Amino acid sequence: MKLWQKDKQVEKSVETFTVGKDRELDAEMAAFDVLGSLAHTRMLESINLLSKEDLDTVQKELKNIYNEIAAGEFTIEDGVEDVHSQVELLLTQRIGEAGKKIHSGRSRNDQVLVDLKLYFRSQIQRTVENTEALFRQLITLSEEHKNKLLPGYTHLQIAMPSSFGLWFGAYAESLVDDLELMLAAWKVCNKNPLGSAAGYGSSFPLNRTMTTELLGFDSLNYNVVYAQMGRGKTERILAQAMSSIAATLAKLSMDVTLFINQNFAFISFPDELTTGSSIMPHKKNPDVFELMRSRCNKIQALPNEIALMTTNLPSGYHRDLQLLKENLFPAFQSLNECLEMAVFMLQNISVKDDILKDEKYLYLFSVEAVNEEVLKGVPFREAYKKVGLEIEKGEFKAPEKVQHTHEGSIGNLCNKEIGAAFQSTLSSFNFNKVEQAIQQLVS
Amino acid sequence: MKLWQKDKQVEKSVETFTVGKDRELDAEMAAFDVLGSLAHTRMLESINLLSKEDLDTVQKELKNIYNEIAAGEFTIEDGVEDVHSQVELLLTQRIGEAGKKIHSGRSRNDQVLVDLKLYFRSQIQRTVENTEALFRQLITLSEEHKNKLLPGYTHLQIAMPSSFGLWFGAYAESLVDDLELMLAAWKVCNKNPLGSAAGYGSSFPLNRTMTTELLGFDSLNYNVVYAQMGRGKTERILAQAMSSIAATLAKLSMDVTLFINQNFAFISFPDELTTGSSIMPHKKNPDVFELMRSRCNKIQALPNEIALMTTNLPSGYHRDLQLLKENLFPAFQSLNECLEMAVFMLQNISVKDDILKDEKYLYLFSVEAVNEEVLKGVPFREAYKKVGLEIEKGEFKAPEKVQHTHEGSIGNLCNKEIGAAFQSTLSSFNFNKVEQAIQQLVS
Amino acid sequence: MKLWQKDKQVEKSVETFTVGKDRELDAEMAAFDVLGSLAHTRMLESINLLSKEDLDTVQKELKNIYNEIAAGEFTIEDGVEDVHSQVELLLTQRIGEAGKKIHSGRSRNDQVLVDLKLYFRSQIQRTVENTEALFRQLITLSEEHKNKLLPGYTHLQIAMPSSFGLWFGAYAESLVDDLELMLAAWKVCNKNPLGSAAGYGSSFPLNRTMTTELLGFDSLNYNVVYAQMGRGKTERILAQAMSSIAATLAKLSMDVTLFINQNFAFISFPDELTTGSSIMPHKKNPDVFELMRSRCNKIQALPNEIALMTTNLPSGYHRDLQLLKENLFPAFQSLNECLEMAVFMLQNISVKDDILKDEKYLYLFSVEAVNEEVLKGVPFREAYKKVGLEIEKGEFKAPEKVQHTHEGSIGNLCNKEIGAAFQSTLSSFNFNKVEQAIQQLVS
Amino acid sequence: MKLWQKDKQVEKSVETFTVGKDRELDAEMAAFDVLGSLAHTRMLESINLLSKEDLDTVQKELKNIYNEIAAGEFTIEDGVEDVHSQVELLLTQRIGEAGKKIHSGRSRNDQVLVDLKLYFRSQIQRTVENTEALFRQLITLSEEHKNKLLPGYTHLQIAMPSSFGLWFGAYAESLVDDLELMLAAWKVCNKNPLGSAAGYGSSFPLNRTMTTELLGFDSLNYNVVYAQMGRGKTERILAQAMSSIAATLAKLSMDVTLFINQNFAFISFPDELTTGSSIMPHKKNPDVFELMRSRCNKIQALPNEIALMTTNLPSGYHRDLQLLKENLFPAFQSLNECLEMAVFMLQNISVKDDILKDEKYLYLFSVEAVNEEVLKGVPFREAYKKVGLEIEKGEFKAPEKVQHTHEGSIGNLCNKEIGAAFQSTLSSFNFNKVEQAIQQLVS
Repeated sequence: MKLWQKDKQVEKSVETFTVGKDRELDAEMAAFDVLGSLAHTRMLESINLLSKEDLDTVQKELKNIYNEIAAGEFTIEDGVEDVHSQVELLLTQRIGEAGKKIHSGRSRNDQVLVDLKLYFRSQIQRTVENTEALFRQLITLSEEHKNKLLPGYTHLQIAMPSSFGLWFGAYAESLVDDLELMLAAWKVCNKNPLGSAAGYGSSFPLNRTMTTELLGFDSLNYNVVYAQMGRGKTERILAQAMSSIAATLAKLSMDVTLFINQNFAFISFPDELTTGSSIMPHKKNPDVFELMRSRCNKIQALPNEIALMTTNLPSGYHRDLQLLKENLFPAFQSLNECLEMAVFMLQNISVKDDILKDEKYLYLFSVEAVNEEVLKGVPFREAYKKVGLEIEKGEFKAPEKVQHTHEGSIGNLCNKEIGAAFQSTLSSFNFNKVEQAIQQLVS
Repeated sequence: MKLWQKDKQVEKSVETFTVGKDRELDAEMAAFDVLGSLAHTRMLESINLLSKEDLDTVQKELKNIYNEIAAGEFTIEDGVEDVHSQVELLLTQRIGEAGKKIHSGRSRNDQVLVDLKLYFRSQIQRTVENTEALFRQLITLSEEHKNKLLPGYTHLQIAMPSSFGLWFGAYAESLVDDLELMLAAWKVCNKNPLGSAAGYGSSFPLNRTMTTELLGFDSLNYNVVYAQMGRGKTERILAQAMSSIAATLAKLSMDVTLFINQNFAFISFPDELTTGSSIMPHKKNPDVFELMRSRCNKIQALPNEIALMTTNLPSGYHRDLQLLKENLFPAFQSLNECLEMAVFMLQNISVKDDILKDEKYLYLFSVEAVNEEVLKGVPFREAYKKVGLEIEKGEFKAPEKVQHTHEGSIGNLCNKEIGAAFQSTLSSFNFNKVEQAIQQLVS
Repeated sequence: MKLWQKDKQVEKSVETFTVGKDRELDAEMAAFDVLGSLAHTRMLESINLLSKEDLDTVQKELKNIYNEIAAGEFTIEDGVEDVHSQVELLLTQRIGEAGKKIHSGRSRNDQVLVDLKLYFRSQIQRTVENTEALFRQLITLSEEHKNKLLPGYTHLQIAMPSSFGLWFGAYAESLVDDLELMLAAWKVCNKNPLGSAAGYGSSFPLNRTMTTELLGFDSLNYNVVYAQMGRGKTERILAQAMSSIAATLAKLSMDVTLFINQNFAFISFPDELTTGSSIMPHKKNPDVFELMRSRCNKIQALPNEIALMTTNLPSGYHRDLQLLKENLFPAFQSLNECLEMAVFMLQNISVKDDILKDEKYLYLFSVEAVNEEVLKGVPFREAYKKVGLEIEKGEFKAPEKVQHTHEGSIGNLCNKEIGAAFQSTLSSFNFNKVEQAIQQLVS
Repeated sequence: MKLWQKDKQVEKSVETFTVGKDRELDAEMAAFDVLGSLAHTRMLESINLLSKEDLDTVQKELKNIYNEIAAGEFTIEDGVEDVHSQVELLLTQRIGEAGKKIHSGRSRNDQVLVDLKLYFRSQIQRTVENTEALFRQLITLSEEHKNKLLPGYTHLQIAMPSSFGLWFGAYAESLVDDLELMLAAWKVCNKNPLGSAAGYGSSFPLNRTMTTELLGFDSLNYNVVYAQMGRGKTERILAQAMSSIAATLAKLSMDVTLFINQNFAFISFPDELTTGSSIMPHKKNPDVFELMRSRCNKIQALPNEIALMTTNLPSGYHRDLQLLKENLFPAFQSLNECLEMAVFMLQNISVKDDILKDEKYLYLFSVEAVNEEVLKGVPFREAYKKVGLEIEKGEFKAPEKVQHTHEGSIGNLCNKEIGAAFQSTLSSFNFNKVEQAIQQLVS
C-alpha cells in the first residue's frame, strides 16, 4: 500500500458497529451542515484558499442543496456514512473538483461541532417558543380562575386555602426560572467552534472571526482545545436546561393525575382527551399527563447519562462523543411535543367550583379565623384559644371570604409582574440576530 | 387534651428519626436565619404587627446573636431541634415575650426557604471567587508556557501539535462557560420567598417588597405556591451549576494523572505534593488530583440525587425536602476545597521542555508539512503525496517551527479575549448590592 | 535524603485534603481490620514469614484490641491517619517490633479490600435480618386485614376492588425479589481478596486458601488484578441491592402518604407517631413516611454516584476509590433505620373498615357484575350490555361479596407460598458459616 | 352515546402522543404475545371459559401466526395500535368470533406483563450466551499470553510487574461476578404475572399454576398487586444486571485505548479493525473500543433512568410504565453487539513481547528484589536498605525472573478455578426447562 492511497478497507462488521445510528440521526443536521459550509467557503476565499470562481460555484450549489433539504428532497443514500459525506457527494457530483476543495482548513471534528451548535440553536428557539405558549396559557387560566378556591396541602394533608389562580400561576412562574437555565444553555451554544479543526487548530491563516459573524454567533470558542472540549459539555448543559422545563411539566402532570382522581375531583377533561371504560363511567384515565410525566422524567435522566458517557475522558476527541446524539436529539422532539400537548390539554381543562364547601375542608380556615381576630387586635394566644374552643365544640364556621392581599397571594397574584419577568429573560435570546445572519447566508 | 394545648408528645424514636442530621447541618445557616428575622421584624413593625418598642428590643438582640455567630460563639444546644428553635430560644431567654412575636405572618416553611436562599447566595459568591482565582492561575500558566509544545491526541492517539498554552488556556475558557450556569443559579436564588408562609400565603397584609429590598434580593418569588415549589428546584439548579465546574476540574485531573504518568511524563510536581515510595524513585502518586477527580465526579452525581428525591412529588411542602441539605451543603465545601487545592497545586506544577523532540512524536508534524506546501501554492494532492513519500522513505523531517496564527491557536491564544469574557459574566453577579443590603441590616 | 529514609514530609494542606473523612468513617471498620490481621498473621506463620513466638504475641494482643473495640474503647487518635495505622500503633506500643512484622506479604490495598468485604458482610446480615422483620410484619397485617376491601386504582383512577390483604401482601412479596439482589451482592462480597497485595500479587509464597477459610469466605477473588478491580464494583452491586429494598420502602411510603390523606382516608396512625396542629384537628402529617421515602430515594441515587466515580478509570488502584465510603457507609445505617422504623410504624397502623360503602366506589364493582353474569352462562356482550344499562339507569347495585379465588387474589392471598419463597432465598445466605469462622478466629 | 357503545373517538393528536413508539418497539414482542395467548387459552378451556372446539381453532391459528413471526412475515399494520391488537386482528380475520374470546380473564395489563417477562427471558439467555463466549475468549488469551509481562500501575504510576495472563484473566473473572447479577435478574423475571389482570385479579376461577407450568416459569408472582408492582422493578433489575457486564466492558475498553496509545504501545490490532490516516502511519484509532465504552456507559445510565421514571409513583398501573421499553429494548441489542464485537476484536489482538525490557520499567522490580532477599533470610530493613542503595548508586538490576506462586498470581493464574466458578453460576440458569416448555406450547 502506498501511503497516499486510501486506507485498507475497514472490516464490514467494524463499519456497521461504528456507523451506528448516525445516518438516521444526522438527517436533522443536514441544513446546518450546509450553513456551516456556506460560511466556511466564504472565509476560505477571503484567505485565498479558494478562488473567487470556485466560491461562486460552490455557494450556488450549496444553496440549491439547502433548498432541497428545506423542501424535504434530501436523503442520505445507502452506503453513504453520514450527512457530511452525503452533502459532499452531491456537491462533487454536481460541480466536480471544486466540491472537494471546501474541506481545506477544516476537520470533520469542527465541522460536526459547528453543525451541532447550529442545530442546538434552532432547537432552543423552538423550545423557547413552545415554552412561551405554555406560559401564556397558564397565565390565562390563572386569571380566568383566580376566584376559585382549592385546598392547599402540606405533607399531602389539607392545610390552608389555595386557589386555581395560585395553582396555574405557580407553574407559569416556574417557567420563568426554567428560562434562565435555557438562556445559559443558549449562551454556551452560541459560540463558534469552527476553525478548531481536530481540536488543535490549523496552520492555515483562518479567519474565525469572519465565520463567527457569518453564522450569527455571539462570540467564539476561542481556545481550539476548549472548542473540542465543549463537545459533551454543551450537550450536558442543554440537557440540564431541558430537564428544568421537564421537571416543571412532570410536577404539573403529577398534580393533574391527582386532581382528576375521584377522591380529589378538582378538575376534569373532555372524554375525547382521556380514555375510559363504558361500564366504569367515572373513569377518566389521564394518559396524556401520565405519558408527559414519564417522558419528562426520562428527560430528567439525560444530563446524568451524558455525564456518565463523558466523565473521566481525558481532553481531546474520543469517538465516544458520537453517541451523545442518540438520546439528546429525540429529547428535543419529545419535550416540544410535551409542551404543545400541555397547551392543548390546558385549553380544554374544566375546573370545579365551590370545592371548599365540602365539610372535609372546614378546618382549612382555622388559621384564617385566628388571623382575623389578631387583625382586630386580639392577642394571638387569645385568638388561638378562641378558635380552638370553637373547633372543639363543633361551632367553628369558615370565614365568608378569604382575604389575602400581599404580593403573590390569592387576592394579588402578581401575574403581571411574573409576565414581565418572563419577557425580560425572553428578550435576552437574540433569535433575530441569528435569523438575519442565516437569512443572509442562504440568499 | 384541650385543643389549645401542645400536641401529644411525639414518640422518642420518631423524633430521632425525623430530626436526622438537622442540628449538625443547620449550624451553617444560623447567621442567615438571623438576617431573615431582622428583615421580617422590620416589616412586621411597618404593618403594625409589632410595636416600635418590641422591634427595637428584638433588633438589638438579633444583632447580638448575629455577632456571636460571627465570633463562633453559637451552638445548637442539646435537646433543641434545629437552628431556628435555637435562635428563638436565645431571643426569648434574653428579651422575654417580645421574642415570641417575631413569628407572626411567617411559617417555618418560608423561614427555611429564605434562610436557604441567603446561605446559597453566600456559597455562590465564595465559589465564584475561588473559580476566579483558578481562572487567573490557568491564564497565567497558559501565558507562561505558551511556547512549550505538547502532543495533541485524538482517540488518545498522537495526532497534531498542541501546547501548554492551549492546554492551560482550554481549562480557563471552560470556566467561562461554567460561570454562565452559576449565574443562572444565582438569578434563580436571588429572589425572595419570604411571605409565602406554608406555601399558600397569609391573610396578614405583609409587605413582601419591603423584605425583598431589605435582604438585597433582586426580585420576589411572587406566587406563593411557586415560592414553595422552588424548594428542591433551586437546589437542583445549584447542583447543576456546581457540577459544571466540577466536570471541568475532573477532566483537568484526569489529564494530570495521565500527563504525570511515566509513559507520558509531560508534567511534574514537587515531592512534598505527591506521595511515593523510596525504593520506587519514579513513583509520584498524584493523590490530590485523584481525590479531586473523585470528589468532582461525586458532585456530578448530585443533581441526579436531587431529581430522584423530588421527582413525582405533587405540589406543596413535603418533609422529603429536608434531606436535600445532606449532600448539598458538604458539596459546596468540597468543591471550594477542590478549587483552592487546584490553584495551590498548579502554582507548583513543572512543565517539561522539548517534549516533541522524542521521535515517537515525529508524525505529529505531517499535516503541518502538507499545509506548508499548500500555502506555497502546491496543490493539496501533490503536497500530500510528497509528504507521504518522505514518510515512507524515512526521510520525513518535522518543520522547524509550528506556525499557527488564527484566533485561539498555538500562536494566538486569545487569552485576553477569554479573560474579557470571564470578566463580563463575573460582573453580572451583583455581589456588592447584596453585601450592602446585609451590611445595612446588621449595623 | 537517603533512599531508605522516610519520604519528604507531605505538605500539610495536601495531607488534610487527602485524609478527608477517613478517620471518621474508618471507625466502623476497626473490628474487621483486626480480623483480617488475625487471619493474615496465622497464614504468615504457616509459610515461615513469622515465628511461632511472634505469632502468639501478635494474636493475643490483636484479640485484646478486638475486645476493646467491641467494648467501645477504641478511638483513632489525633494525628493518626486511619484505622489501620491506629491498630498498628496500638500493637507496636504494646508488643514492640513483632507488631511491625504483620505487614509482610500484604499491602495497604488488599488490607482495605478485605476489611471492606468483612464490613459489608456484617452490614448485609444486619440488613437481611431487618428485612425479614419487615416481611413478617407485612404478612401479619395482610392476614389480619385480609377481609377489608380497598379501592384498587389504575391510572390513579378508581378501577377494581382490592383489599388490605393484597396491599400489605404485595409489599411483602416485593421484599422476596429484593432479597434475590441482596443474595447476589452477598455472593460477590463473600470472596477473599487478601493476598492480592497492591493488585499484582506478591513474590512471597502466600497461602490465600488458608486465609479464605479462616475468614469464612466462600471462595477467593482469584486473579489478583481482579481482586483490586472488585473495588468500586462490589460497592456498586451492594448499592444496587440496597436500592431495591429502598425502592420498595419508598413506594410503600408514597402509598401511605396518599392513604392517610383526608381525601382518601384509608389508614391512620396514633397522634404520637405523626405531627399535627391543634387548630387543624384533621392534620396528621406523616413525617416518618415522607422522610423514609426521601432517604430511600437518596439510596436509589447511590449506585449511579458510584458509577460516576468509577467509570472510565483504567484498571489498577486509584485513590478515587477512597471516597466511595462516604455515602455508602451511611446508606447502610439509613436503610436499616428505615426498615426498623417501617416495622415500628406498621405495628401501629389503623385500617379503616367499610371503605367501599362510599358511593363514589360503586362502579368498582361493574366488572364483577359482568363476570358474575358470564359465569352464569350469559354471553359476555349480553352481560356487558345489561350492566351498562343498569348503570345508565342508575339501577346498578354492587354485588354483596367479592368472590376472587385464584392464586394471589383477594380471596386466596398465597401468603404461605410467599413466605416459603422468602425463606428459600434467606436460607441461601450462609451467615452461620461466617459467624463460626469469626468466632474461631477471635477466641 | 349509550354506555355499551364504544367510547367517544379519542382526539387524533392525543392518540399520536399516547401511541408513541409502541408500534416500532412492540415488534420484538410479537412471538411472546402469541406464546402468552397459547397458554392462556389452554387454561381458559380448562376452566370452561372456552369450548374445546374454540380452543382447537384458536391454538391452530396462533401457531400459524407464531410461525409467520419466526419467518419474518409479521408486521403491525398501519392504524393498528400495538402488537397485541395486531395479533387479535389477524386471529379474528382468520377464525372469526372465536378470536375475540381469548381475552376473557385477562387484561391488557397482565398480557403485557407476561409478554415482557417472556421477552426478557429470551434476551437474558442471549446475553448470557454472548457473555460466555467472551469469557472463553478472555481465558484463552490469558493462557496464551501468561508468560508475557506488563507493567502494573497503581495511581496510574508504574508500580509492580503484571502480565497479560493477569490482565485478560481479570476481565474473565469480572464476568463471573457479573453473571451473579444476571442470575438474580433471571430469577426475578422467571415468575408468572399472568392472571393478575389489571393488577387486582379476577372473579373468574383462573388457574394461574397451569399457565405458570405451560410457560415454563419457575414460579408465580403470587400477589396480584405485586405482579403489577413488578413492572418497572423488573426492568430496573435487568438494567442493573446489564450494567454490570457493561461496566466490565467499558473498563476493558478504557484499558485498550490506553494500551494501544503510542506512549504505552502494549497491544495492537490489524489495520482493518482500526481507523487511521495515511500520513500519520502511527495512528490506529480504536474506534470500536471507544464506541463500546460509550455504549456501555450509556447502559450504565439506564437503571437510573428507570428509577427516575418510576420513583414516587403510588402502587397500581400508570401509563408512565409504557415508556420504559424505549431505552431498555435497544440496550439489550446494544450490549449483545458489544459482547460479540469484543470477542471478534480480541480474536485479533496482538500483544507486544518484552515490554518490561524498556529501562523506564526497571524500578518495577525493586519490591521483588527486596522480597528475594527476605526469602533468603535477610531481615526486611536490611534488604530494603540494600536495594535502596543499589538504586541510588545506579547499580540496581532487575531479577531474571518474576517468581509469583500464590493463588491468582502471575505464576498461578487459577484460570481453571475461575472457569469452574463461571460454569457453576451458568448452570443455575434453567434455560433448558424454559426451552422445552416453549417447544411444547408451539408444537
